Amino acid sequence: MSYVRKIINDPVYGFITVDDPLIFKIIAHPFYQRLRRIYQMAFASLVYPGAVHSRLHHSLGAYHLMGLAITELRNKGIEITKEEETGAKIAILLHDIGHGPFSHALEKKLIRNVDHEQISLMILGLLNGNMNGQLETAIKIFTDAYPKKFLHQLVSGQLDVDRMDYLTRDSFFTGVSEGVIGYDRILKMLVVHDGELMIEEKAIYSVEKFLVARRLMYWQVYHHKTVVVAEKMLVKIIDRAQALIQNKINLHAASPVLDFFLKQDTNEHFEKYLEKFTQLDDTDILCTLKIWCSHPDGVLSTLCKGLINRDLLKIRLQSERFDEEEIIKLQKDVAGKLRITMDEAQYFVFKGEAINTTYNPLDEHIKILFKDGTVSDISKVDNALIHQQLAAPVKKYYLCYLQ
Amino acid sequence: MSYVRKIINDPVYGFITVDDPLIFKIIAHPFYQRLRRIYQMAFASLVYPGAVHSRLHHSLGAYHLMGLAITELRNKGIEITKEEETGAKIAILLHDIGHGPFSHALEKKLIRNVDHEQISLMILGLLNGNMNGQLETAIKIFTDAYPKKFLHQLVSGQLDVDRMDYLTRDSFFTGVSEGVIGYDRILKMLVVHDGELMIEEKAIYSVEKFLVARRLMYWQVYHHKTVVVAEKMLVKIIDRAQALIQNKINLHAASPVLDFFLKQDTNEHFEKYLEKFTQLDDTDILCTLKIWCSHPDGVLSTLCKGLINRDLLKIRLQSERFDEEEIIKLQKDVAGKLRITMDEAQYFVFKGEAINTTYNPLDEHIKILFKDGTVSDISKVDNALIHQQLAAPVKKYYLCYLQ
Amino acid sequence: MSYVRKIINDPVYGFITVDDPLIFKIIAHPFYQRLRRIYQMAFASLVYPGAVHSRLHHSLGAYHLMGLAITELRNKGIEITKEEETGAKIAILLHDIGHGPFSHALEKKLIRNVDHEQISLMILGLLNGNMNGQLETAIKIFTDAYPKKFLHQLVSGQLDVDRMDYLTRDSFFTGVSEGVIGYDRILKMLVVHDGELMIEEKAIYSVEKFLVARRLMYWQVYHHKTVVVAEKMLVKIIDRAQALIQNKINLHAASPVLDFFLKQDTNEHFEKYLEKFTQLDDTDILCTLKIWCSHPDGVLSTLCKGLINRDLLKIRLQSERFDEEEIIKLQKDVAGKLRITMDEAQYFVFKGEAINTTYNPLDEHIKILFKDGTVSDISKVDNALIHQQLAAPVKKYYLCYLQ
Amino acid sequence: MSYVRKIINDPVYGFITVDDPLIFKIIAHPFYQRLRRIYQMAFASLVYPGAVHSRLHHSLGAYHLMGLAITELRNKGIEITKEEETGAKIAILLHDIGHGPFSHALEKKLIRNVDHEQISLMILGLLNGNMNGQLETAIKIFTDAYPKKFLHQLVSGQLDVDRMDYLTRDSFFTGVSEGVIGYDRILKMLVVHDGELMIEEKAIYSVEKFLVARRLMYWQVYHHKTVVVAEKMLVKIIDRAQALIQNKINLHAASPVLDFFLKQDTNEHFEKYLEKFTQLDDTDILCTLKIWCSHPDGVLSTLCKGLINRDLLKIRLQSERFDEEEIIKLQKDVAGKLRITMDEAQYFVFKGEAINTTYNPLDEHIKILFKDGTVSDISKVDNALIHQQLAAPVKKYYLCYLQ
Repeated sequence: MSYVRKIINDPVYGFITVDDPLIFKIIAHPFYQRLRRIYQMAFASLVYPGAVHSRLHHSLGAYHLMGLAITELRNKGIEITKEEETGAKIAILLHDIGHGPFSHALEKKLIRNVDHEQISLMILGLLNGNMNGQLETAIKIFTDAYPKKFLHQLVSGQLDVDRMDYLTRDSFFTGVSEGVIGYDRILKMLVVHDGELMIEEKAIYSVEKFLVARRLMYWQVYHHKTVVVAEKMLVKIIDRAQALIQNKINLHAASPVLDFFLKQDTNEHFEKYLEKFTQLDDTDILCTLKIWCSHPDGVLSTLCKGLINRDLLKIRLQSERFDEEEIIKLQKDVAGKLRITMDEAQYFVFKGEAINTTYNPLDEHIKILFKDGTVSDISKVDNALIHQQLAAPVKKYYLCYLQ
Repeated sequence: MSYVRKIINDPVYGFITVDDPLIFKIIAHPFYQRLRRIYQMAFASLVYPGAVHSRLHHSLGAYHLMGLAITELRNKGIEITKEEETGAKIAILLHDIGHGPFSHALEKKLIRNVDHEQISLMILGLLNGNMNGQLETAIKIFTDAYPKKFLHQLVSGQLDVDRMDYLTRDSFFTGVSEGVIGYDRILKMLVVHDGELMIEEKAIYSVEKFLVARRLMYWQVYHHKTVVVAEKMLVKIIDRAQALIQNKINLHAASPVLDFFLKQDTNEHFEKYLEKFTQLDDTDILCTLKIWCSHPDGVLSTLCKGLINRDLLKIRLQSERFDEEEIIKLQKDVAGKLRITMDEAQYFVFKGEAINTTYNPLDEHIKILFKDGTVSDISKVDNALIHQQLAAPVKKYYLCYLQ
Repeated sequence: MSYVRKIINDPVYGFITVDDPLIFKIIAHPFYQRLRRIYQMAFASLVYPGAVHSRLHHSLGAYHLMGLAITELRNKGIEITKEEETGAKIAILLHDIGHGPFSHALEKKLIRNVDHEQISLMILGLLNGNMNGQLETAIKIFTDAYPKKFLHQLVSGQLDVDRMDYLTRDSFFTGVSEGVIGYDRILKMLVVHDGELMIEEKAIYSVEKFLVARRLMYWQVYHHKTVVVAEKMLVKIIDRAQALIQNKINLHAASPVLDFFLKQDTNEHFEKYLEKFTQLDDTDILCTLKIWCSHPDGVLSTLCKGLINRDLLKIRLQSERFDEEEIIKLQKDVAGKLRITMDEAQYFVFKGEAINTTYNPLDEHIKILFKDGTVSDISKVDNALIHQQLAAPVKKYYLCYLQ
Repeated sequence: MSYVRKIINDPVYGFITVDDPLIFKIIAHPFYQRLRRIYQMAFASLVYPGAVHSRLHHSLGAYHLMGLAITELRNKGIEITKEEETGAKIAILLHDIGHGPFSHALEKKLIRNVDHEQISLMILGLLNGNMNGQLETAIKIFTDAYPKKFLHQLVSGQLDVDRMDYLTRDSFFTGVSEGVIGYDRILKMLVVHDGELMIEEKAIYSVEKFLVARRLMYWQVYHHKTVVVAEKMLVKIIDRAQALIQNKINLHAASPVLDFFLKQDTNEHFEKYLEKFTQLDDTDILCTLKIWCSHPDGVLSTLCKGLINRDLLKIRLQSERFDEEEIIKLQKDVAGKLRITMDEAQYFVFKGEAINTTYNPLDEHIKILFKDGTVSDISKVDNALIHQQLAAPVKKYYLCYLQ
């Protein structure tokens, strides 16, 4: 039987079907399988114990939504060739392939000059080489170099299947039911007009709801103060480890590959280190933190024990800046308590900012196609929820400290 | 075994438990059982075929949430006696007992001077008489005459269990997943402060989400244009029937009881007709409409056939008023087409308004209790979604017409 | 725009799409719209208040599953033409069109010689006439006269989409989560072999689960003793009404159409009465019962009040036959209590049987297609749950009585 | 404010509440937090990508169900003191605390003479020491030494909250909807009779459904052939590593703690190694496998790469034993292909058995309490699904091989 198809159970969508040989090959590739060992939501499971789903699962979900979106658009008369379909599906499947372990926390930390999107593109290139150029269309779509612009917008845009899947999936696994979006309704309302992705008029409330759910997920989940403090502690741990290494203190990661990225400067010609990079995942970090719990350096071991045992620093979030004097006082306290220097105290008492914009009409656009053929940005629609004020970014200040 | 308890399967909450003899008695009463035969959402099932749940089901659900709310508040140290608990549960169980068939459409139509809340109170009084005054506390809570004001607020207020249940339940049965609210989270965040019901600071996003979901449900479901047109057609049918009756045309309802309310003026001393009223439900209306499909009066039978067979008038919804001339033109068209008078044409071509306010800070209040003990209205909270503009009522104009 | 498509929200499957003009026409037809006013589960809502969904909703759901099944089979290389697709979809959409009000209870009661499947076929014929023979294929599939036998098996067979939808939907609306079946998995495992519908080997556990869920739904829901007693009371009410009519007692139904079927013998040449029959629905029955609550005949009014107010007769279910003497004693009691004759007492004290077979390998077949190409009945599969004993019918005896 | 309570979002049950200071302390303990880093379902996520939930999440869920069960039983008049409640909750929270990484696969492998239940008891003892004997009651309940036997049965028995949670949770996270059990209904039907846990008569179908769901989950999920082959590969990897160590080949685990258990004989006086054991988790194994992917030993690195990259051995499952000759032939093939010895070929070609019993009436009991006060084992109930044949264990044979 020439018919080959694989059905994957997904608690979110029921079943995800794979039936294209090239996509099978990509999913089976070690680069893609690595995503099994990277949490989609990093430390969010410290607050939401169910939020342990992997980046592999998210990208499979986004791939599934891409299939639905393409079917919808074709039903509406938009021409999408088989090759374009496969290209768009591969682009979304691999859109996060360049994420390293605990990516948002460690972005620009382990690998300093290259961001995860650039790495994704490098990996796409590498795979394309291995697979005789079969990823050309996917790469063009990924980089917005493909003529049918709407395909790129499905991969990366205000209403892309990436966001639709992660909001849906993160809401599902955290159990934050308020984050539920009507992804199926939005998908059914997608249209292409003048080559661009838009949404039918009658989906306005669903899109508003989508933006509000995103806003809620940001503050209640992604920027939850416990999640923020855990991420910041990981950053401080890497900072400390690198400081110790520079001071020639004996220190090893659990795996040679993490050891390499901690000790080697990989900023120039990152391509040379790409293969190595694809061996890194969350288990390297976690296993390393566990080992460092008994490192002789007190700063390092205290932070590691705190993060591993979920005995985290305290954190305060507020709309105003924190007072410098209060911070210095807290640092003095901790320096005294732990018998460390004031410089070292900064590993335990520090501040920063978290920013979120629900919808920024300057940067990004959700275009509404009205029945009469006119087009309008959602922020300009009469009675819309998404007005000036909501469009402004919201900034919060945090202060982490040891009590 | 003295232990008596009944468990009712509910697709929304799993199980609803009843374990109080007085509540058993009320649920078993014919007045309450009548609610089985009144759709919670009237004609919404013409658009959302699943939306056929009854007012009985909604009030049982609200009763269930009242139990959860009381447990939560008690856990937080608020004193609520057994008698108050039963009173609040009865008040919510019977809060809609005064609704007649297709209530929102026919409110002030069949019974002209008395609204459903007044009728609810009369029925509460009647039951209280039958049950030796055991409903005294419930009546006080219902009418906000009970000292612990927060009990009334749970029955009727911005965050009452009535709204929480109907939004949750209507969203469930329509399948409009975007209407889902985090009722369980909101319930867990309820507090009583200075004798009033408030919400903890960390529930702000959930409350915002609740208001946005309500807004969405209004426009997408409750005021869906097909639902609006069906309701208005029912009003026109009753108007026409009463006009025919006044003109001594031979016309009967399916049941003596509906016949009575169509033909008799019940505006004074409505109490006399209360018992009769409690025999009316949606089946009287529907069965009557079916009979009138073959009534000799063409206006009546055309409207009835349209509503019964879901062959509805057309409707347009817009933000601006409709042009009078257009309406007259449409009325002329229909008068010609159906060979009826211009007066009769008004049964087929007519206009009106639909209004919705997401949150009106003048009338109603959701108070946030901050950790530091201060209290603020949600519309005054920094960065809140619920700002001036959203608080203003939104008005839409509709035009119904026969094509 | 030539593209016409309607999307219907369904809480069970999310969205149901209709995009065929002929199917639009059938759905819009008054015969089909009548199904809105017939409960899918008759009196089950007396126990499960959510179970108020309509036969229209069920048949739309089965239509949706038919679409999924056809897509699956086509993906596996089975040829199904557009005409066959439409035919199969119409056949399932109309498979229950011949049901009258409270069909299982009143089958062979109001209309004595014709069962609902025969009536469905007559209505299919009538519609086919109206629609210029466009329903020919649907009728052939419905009557198993179509060469591709598997299409009929999808409409009516052990694994048809009718059962899959009603188990899924009834489980959903009752809230009996144990009735959930993996309809999506079973659909994905359907195959056609030698022209017959079969199931892939790896779906064995899902099919077992499906049969066990069906068994559970039978005893816990469909044959729930409260549901049984309500159905039997309705039968007794019709019996009594017809006895009164034969005795020339003044008695009217709420609607002329129900009156007609109560008083007229429609057994010969039922076709003549078909149009009338299509005006009957649950509201005629319910409105009539409400009127009869005040009929002078005590037997009739007592039974009607009991059913309308959910003040039902008592019922006992057991595996052994009931003792005749006990029944006579109970009848004497009620005759004395209500001052009625022993003949009349039989309206309040009576017995009967309920039967259910989980899987009968003699009548019906679920065939498993193994990877090596062999075929086996599921009851013959090694280690299967569905063995001899389970295949035997289970009979229970009931006794209803007034206490 | 003396009121302290923590609410944890759970996608399965909504919210889990913790409000006892002792339970806070246990949850915060590093021994318990370690369970975050142990997958509840080991390699099941290779087939079901959502199945990545942790043992911490499962035990929190079981703790939640214990709370519900206790509330139900108290409502039925069973006396359970606050101390017993806390004891039972701690016992269930810690019932799996002794599991090591990939426990079912590695049970008796890393630690050869002590099983996970013995280790759990040792850890309970250790914690009890640390916490001034506050775990005495929990330990008695855990070891069935507590007079109220039903408390132990809730922790470990045919209808314990452990099984109820893992079936519900595993079904949820895998997306295998057929595994859903009516845990809430079963909990509501629990009774205590003669000091033992039983189930009310009307829950018979729910219990049958529970057993059938368990059977389905075993064959479709827990013993899914891909899951089995992955577990067996892990065992072979550990075997090979220990063989290399014995042959003094240079080989290190990622962490000192895993290295220790690989190289040291810990069979005698395991208590001495308990503290070390509580530092082991899945990340040690996964990080180590990744490192060994580049170990010079071809047998070890080939197996590790296969498991890490999900490039698994083939597996066949059948009801009959495999033929020895076929196995030897396959081993010869692989020995030739990989240029390894016939002894080494056994790491790539090997066989074994998987066994499952749905319900064994000899070992375990589900007792049904009838309304008349009699008690019967479910396998003896009339018409029950759970008969002789289903009670027999089902054995399947597997053969793994490299292709």
